Amino acid sequence: MAELLKGAPVAAALNEKTKAGASQLRERSIVPTLALVRVGENDADIYYERGAVKRCGAVGVEARSVVLPEDIAQEALLEVIEELNRDGSVHGVLIFRPLPKHIDDARIRAALSPEKDVDGITDGSLAGVFTGNGHGFCPCTAQSCVEILDHYGVDCAGKRAVVMGRSLVIGKPVSQLLLARNATVTVCHTRTRDLPAETKRADIIVAAVGHLNALEKQHVSPGQTVIDVGINTNAEGKMAGDADFEAVEPVVGAITPVPGGVGSVTTAVLVAHTVQAAARQNNVMLT
Amino acid sequence: MAELLKGAPVAAALNEKTKAGASQLRERSIVPTLALVRVGENDADIYYERGAVKRCGAVGVEARSVVLPEDIAQEALLEVIEELNRDGSVHGVLIFRPLPKHIDDARIRAALSPEKDVDGITDGSLAGVFTGNGHGFCPCTAQSCVEILDHYGVDCAGKRAVVMGRSLVIGKPVSQLLLARNATVTVCHTRTRDLPAETKRADIIVAAVGHLNALEKQHVSPGQTVIDVGINTNAEGKMAGDADFEAVEPVVGAITPVPGGVGSVTTAVLVAHTVQAAARQNNVMLT
Repeated sequence: MAELLKGAPVAAALNEKTKAGASQLRERSIVPTLALVRVGENDADIYYERGAVKRCGAVGVEARSVVLPEDIAQEALLEVIEELNRDGSVHGVLIFRPLPKHIDDARIRAALSPEKDVDGITDGSLAGVFTGNGHGFCPCTAQSCVEILDHYGVDCAGKRAVVMGRSLVIGKPVSQLLLARNATVTVCHTRTRDLPAETKRADIIVAAVGHLNALEKQHVSPGQTVIDVGINTNAEGKMAGDADFEAVEPVVGAITPVPGGVGSVTTAVLVAHTVQAAARQNNVMLT
Repeated sequence: MAELLKGAPVAAALNEKTKAGASQLRERSIVPTLALVRVGENDADIYYERGAVKRCGAVGVEARSVVLPEDIAQEALLEVIEELNRDGSVHGVLIFRPLPKHIDDARIRAALSPEKDVDGITDGSLAGVFTGNGHGFCPCTAQSCVEILDHYGVDCAGKRAVVMGRSLVIGKPVSQLLLARNATVTVCHTRTRDLPAETKRADIIVAAVGHLNALEKQHVSPGQTVIDVGINTNAEGKMAGDADFEAVEPVVGAITPVPGGVGSVTTAVLVAHTVQAAARQNNVMLT
């Protein structure tokens, strides 16, 4: 029986800190504010938005939903973003992606002010993650993985961490966060020759592949810690991670459930970033 | 007896391409120009500068040495860099580093125009390396490692690559370049628990530690390819790499010598970047 690394206590601890930070800002008449820019009516976006708005309210952060039509012109969307950049009362901006196909994602990302980029989509934020210079913000899901490790006292230093997946949203940034925690980090992907040989020898596995059963019994060993980033739908129509939970859980030492694991930490990170952004933009040092 | 992966043929092949590119630019009255900014009279800088200037001359690139006093004020150095940014006849800028201690390295790096950053020191270039977005330039030494692999037909796809060292100048960027070539990449460092266990199972080892005998017989296996980035001075006062060459060479399949390996490719990459920068800045597509 593996230890279940649930997200809720991690999120709760983060929220306490965020709430304290938000209240310090409000004492200075600064209302930390997150704008959520949604184009169209994607169910998953709406679901995430609802959670984020609720989370904001609970910790003293103002949420401002900006909902735009699916067929919005690129220039009009750019204008919305530039307005949010200019608006001193907005400290963080989350843009739901992927955007509709007629929108040039790279141009939109480049338009966002790096200091308001609380979900780590700009080059400035990604450079910060890569160089460790402290600028910008890490993509929330990637950071959630290490927040879970930190919360449950999993010391990464000197450990072997294997990251499955090399996306800019998770695989690449989480590998840098693990490296910053002094893990020996291996990045695996579709072209990896012998995946089980890599994952079986890891102390920590981060599964960020994005399909069902990417991590099966043959990939794991006793004592490992598994962080499952996947959000997939299984044959029964239920949410499931990248790990074959029934097969993997009895073998490993600890694992995040799906749902209730990484996904339940991301909005807490997003809101924490918003408070940090508000503090930085107003030169307030949070205690 | 390992195959010796000498740098000279790699540099020669690169120089041919660079020369052809420079000549296409000159046909359009564009003289690709590299400014070398040196503060003080460090021997190693002068040595590298001399090599770079000579290399520029051989391929049709103009080199402009900007030599500044060791005690130059930070603001004066910033002004020099901003002048080079503005100067349309300068396409690439190399700043010798480390800079004297009274200069804030981060401010200098941030001041350089990313499009002229031919040695990959700006956040824009490092973001480009991390995201693979094609912006900026990779640090020359890191790119030299993969130029050698490419030149000698070492296919990285699916191979295990182990990078020793996680510096922003070599370890981190070369790990991204190897990942982009579809290697399964492990980054090791001082906190790695069992280094020989990592390196022995690699197909490709990049040693970028910066001290003598960081890679010894116990770290290697038959058939491996070793790229030695180290430039150290041994007990006899001679230049030596990170590998204990006498011990490692008889075991592995291929290895770069020091001197005559990675170091002899870097200026060729630098000059190639300058021609690419000149082409980009003038919207010329080189054939």
